[in-house]
Amino acid sequence: MPDATMSDTTPGTPAEPTTAPGLSRRALLGIGGGVAAVAAAAGFGASRVAAQASAAAAASASPGTYAFTGARQAGVVTPAQDRLYLAAFDVTTDSRDELVALLRRWTTIAARLTQGLPAGPFGAASGPYDAPPDDTGEAADLPPAGLTLTFGFGRSLFVGTPAPDGTPGTDRFGLADRLPGGLVALPHFPADALDPARSDGDLVVQACADDPQVAVHAIRNLSRAAFGAATIRWTQLGYGRTSSTTTAQRTPRNLFGFKDGTANVKAEEPDALDEHVWVPASAADDDTADGVDSAWLTGGTYLVARRIRMLVETWDRTSLREQEALVGRNKGEGAPLSGGTEFTEPDFAATGRADAPLIATNSHVRLAHPDQNDGVRMLRRGYNFTDGNDSLGRLDAGLFFLAFVRDPRTHYVPMQNRLSGQDGLMEYLQHTGSGLFAVPPGVPDGALVLGPDGTPVDSDDGPFVGEALFA
Amino acid sequence: MPDATMSDTTPGTPAEPTTAPGLSRRALLGIGGGVAAVAAAAGFGASRVAAQASAAAAASASPGTYAFTGARQAGVVTPAQDRLYLAAFDVTTDSRDELVALLRRWTTIAARLTQGLPAGPFGAASGPYDAPPDDTGEAADLPPAGLTLTFGFGRSLFVGTPAPDGTPGTDRFGLADRLPGGLVALPHFPADALDPARSDGDLVVQACADDPQVAVHAIRNLSRAAFGAATIRWTQLGYGRTSSTTTAQRTPRNLFGFKDGTANVKAEEPDALDEHVWVPASAADDDTADGVDSAWLTGGTYLVARRIRMLVETWDRTSLREQEALVGRNKGEGAPLSGGTEFTEPDFAATGRADAPLIATNSHVRLAHPDQNDGVRMLRRGYNFTDGNDSLGRLDAGLFFLAFVRDPRTHYVPMQNRLSGQDGLMEYLQHTGSGLFAVPPGVPDGALVLGPDGTPVDSDDGPFVGEALFA
Repeated sequence: MPDATMSDTTPGTPAEPTTAPGLSRRALLGIGGGVAAVAAAAGFGASRVAAQASAAAAASASPGTYAFTGARQAGVVTPAQDRLYLAAFDVTTDSRDELVALLRRWTTIAARLTQGLPAGPFGAASGPYDAPPDDTGEAADLPPAGLTLTFGFGRSLFVGTPAPDGTPGTDRFGLADRLPGGLVALPHFPADALDPARSDGDLVVQACADDPQVAVHAIRNLSRAAFGAATIRWTQLGYGRTSSTTTAQRTPRNLFGFKDGTANVKAEEPDALDEHVWVPASAADDDTADGVDSAWLTGGTYLVARRIRMLVETWDRTSLREQEALVGRNKGEGAPLSGGTEFTEPDFAATGRADAPLIATNSHVRLAHPDQNDGVRMLRRGYNFTDGNDSLGRLDAGLFFLAFVRDPRTHYVPMQNRLSGQDGLMEYLQHTGSGLFAVPPGVPDGALVLGPDGTPVDSDDGPFVGEALFA
Repeated sequence: MPDATMSDTTPGTPAEPTTAPGLSRRALLGIGGGVAAVAAAAGFGASRVAAQASAAAAASASPGTYAFTGARQAGVVTPAQDRLYLAAFDVTTDSRDELVALLRRWTTIAARLTQGLPAGPFGAASGPYDAPPDDTGEAADLPPAGLTLTFGFGRSLFVGTPAPDGTPGTDRFGLADRLPGGLVALPHFPADALDPARSDGDLVVQACADDPQVAVHAIRNLSRAAFGAATIRWTQLGYGRTSSTTTAQRTPRNLFGFKDGTANVKAEEPDALDEHVWVPASAADDDTADGVDSAWLTGGTYLVARRIRMLVETWDRTSLREQEALVGRNKGEGAPLSGGTEFTEPDFAATGRADAPLIATNSHVRLAHPDQNDGVRMLRRGYNFTDGNDSLGRLDAGLFFLAFVRDPRTHYVPMQNRLSGQDGLMEYLQHTGSGLFAVPPGVPDGALVLGPDGTPVDSDDGPFVGEALFA
C-alpha cells in the first residue's frame, strides 16, 4: 500500500464527524414508503474533515458521521466515542467463498450504517412487504451518533483451534500461510481466569458510537447478515470510555475512580502511531523469512481485547492512601505521586521519607510506563463495563481493555507479564476474557459500489475489508 | 398526606432539570483537597422548575438535575432519561433498626448524588486519607446527567419468602400488618420462564440518568453503603428508553424496531395519573377492612418490572407484513393499521378485504388497549437491554418493562393474563425476570439534615424514604 494513499488519515488531523442534518434513517428505511432519494445528503464518501476534534465530537447523541472508507479503518485513532458494543464471531461455514461473501456483505452494511443509513437494501427479492425488512429498525429515528465499525481477524481463522490435547487446528480457508507473525496465541498470564465463552473468535467487530442503541443496532444487523456463515461467540457492552485518543478529549475515569489513559498514544502523534500502532512493511519482510505472506496487514494494526473484572467491593474498602500508592497517581487530579499535574511526567527516581520512592516499585504507573517497557506504548481504547452481579451480590464490573498495537509480541505480552507478576493492582483484578485480532487496513476511498440512489449496495465483485488477505 | 403539599409535582408541569454549571463533583469529592464550599451552587432543594420539558432534557450528558425531595419520588413522571441501572436488594440483617439506618443512609446519599454531589461524607472518622474515600470516584468529572433514584419495597420485606413447599415466610421486621393489598405475589403467566436470580427482592432502586456511568455509579455507591445490611440480588442495565413520559419526548423504538409507548400515560395528564398511577387514599381504606394499615403508601405507586427477552433473530426473519399485523401498527410511522398517523386512535371496528379486521384480533395494540382492558392504563418507563448472547450465538436482548400503576391487581395482572394467552407477539417473547415493588411517596421538601457546607449529611434522626412505613 503506497504511503500516498494514507494522507487523509495523517495523524495530527484527527477526524471530526461531519454532520448530515437533513438525513433521516426513517426516511431511508424503505418501510412504510419508498426509499427517499436523499442519500446524497448523507455525505457518504466525503473525506474526513481535517480539524481538531471538538468537545462536541465526544458528546453523546452526536449527529456526526465518520467516513467508513480510507487507508485505515475508522475506530482506531477516531476520537473515542462514549459507548461500545463489540462482538466476536465464529465462522460456521468451511467455504472460503462464503467467508468472502460475508465480508462483502459486512463491508456494504458497515458503509451504510456508519453514514446513518439502514442496513438494506439486501436480499428481499420478493419486495419489501412480504419479506423481512432490510433493517431491524430500532435505530430508525436516531442520528449516526459517530458510529464506527472496525473489523479484525483472529488466529483461529488462519489455523483453526487446537484441540485440548494439543492437536493442531484445521486451516479451513487456505489462510495458514498468510498468518502474520504477531497473531500469536497469547500466553497464560499469572492472573488469568479466562472464560473460553468470553475469549477468542475467528472475526471481531468493534462498534463504537455515542449512543449505545446505535452500536447494538449495528452489531445486530451485521450478525443477522452473517446467518449461515458466522454466529456470535461473545459480545461485550461498554458504557463509558476509559481512554482519550485525541488531546482534545477529557481524560475519563475507570471504575477504580482514577483517571485512565493519561499517557495514551494520541491521534496527534504521527510518529508515535507509526512506531507503536501501525504495522510496518518491515513486519511482512520478517514474516517472509518464515514462509508467510503477511503483506495484506501492512498499514493495519492489532487489537488486544481483555475483559478485566475489577473487584470493586474490595477496592472500595481500601484506604485512599493505599489506592493512590497502588496506582502511583493521586485520585483527584491524576497527577503522579512524584508531583505536578495530570500530564507531568512521573519522576520514578524521586524519593520521600526514609528514601522510599514516591512512586512505589509495584505501582501500576511505574510498571506500565514506557521507560520500564523498552519504550513501548499502546493506543488504548477501553471501556467500563457492568454485567450484572455474581451470586454474592458483587458487581460483575470492570474494564474492557482494548489496545491497538503494531505487534503484540513486543507491545503487549512483555508488559502484561510484568504487570501480572508485580503490579499491586492485580490483587483487585481478574482477567476473565481475552482476544487478539489482526485489523487490516481500510477499504479505499471511492471503491464502494453504489446503487441508483447513490448509496452503497452489495455486489458480487465489490470491495471488502481485508480483501488483500484473500488476493 | 394533604394534597396541598403536592403542588410542585402537579402533572401538567413536568419537571425540567435545573442546570448547575458551576458545580464540579471533583471539587466536592474531598479527595486531594478540601471540600469546596460551592454546594449552594448545586441548587439543592430547589423546587422543580415548572416548564415544558425541552428536547435538551432528554439529551445525553445533560448537566441537568432533578430535585430529590418532593411529595412524590422523582423517576416516575420525570421525563424518561436515556439510560437505566436498576438493582434489587436482599436485606441481610434481621434488625429493623439496621434496616431503618440503611434507608436513612440511602436517602442522604441519593439526595447528594442526584444533585451532582459525591456520596460522602460518611464514616471515615479517622480522616479521608487513611480511610476509604467517601465516594468511589468514577463520576467525579461527570455532570449530574439528570439522575433520579427511586426506591421501592418488595413483598418479601413484609412477609418474607415462602419456602418451595408453601410454608409462609418470616415477618422479620414487624411489617406484615402494613402489607398493602396491591403488593401481591404475581401469578404465573403462561409465557413465564422466570429466573429466580433475576426476580423479586426486598428493596429496589431504580437509577435513571442520561449517562450510564452516572447511573451505575449511583447504584454502586448505594450498594456500598448497604454493606452488612443488604446485598444486590439482581441488576439490570438498560441502554435505550422505550417510553416517553412527557408529550415533548419523541416516541422511541423497541428492539422489534417499532415505536413503543405511544399511548403511555404522560406527565401532562393529571387526571389520568390520579386514576391510574398514584395510590389513592381509598386503597388504604380498603386494606383497613383486612386489618392492614397501608396509609403509608397513599400518594405513592407500584412498580412492575419484567425482564422480557425478545427472540430477535426469529423476529428478524419475519416478513414486514407479519410484523405489522402482530403489532397492529405500521413500522415506519407507528400509525395503527386502521389508518392515520402515530397518535390517531386505533379503530378496532375497521375492516378490510373479506371483512377481516384491519387491526387483527391477536395484535398487541388491540389486546393492550385500554378499551379492551376495562379502561386501564399504565405509565410505562421501560428500557432496551442487551446482556451478551446465549450459547447458540443469539443475543440475550429485549425489553426491560417498567410500569408504574396504582394497583397491580387491576392495572397489570388482568392485562398480562390476556397478553400471555392471546397476543401473537408472545411467540417472540420470554419473560425471564419479574419484580413488583411498592414505591412510597417522596421525602418532603426541607426535611433533609444539612451539614456545615449546606449539603445533606446522614443523621440518626434524619428523614428517609418510606419513613411512614416504620412510623
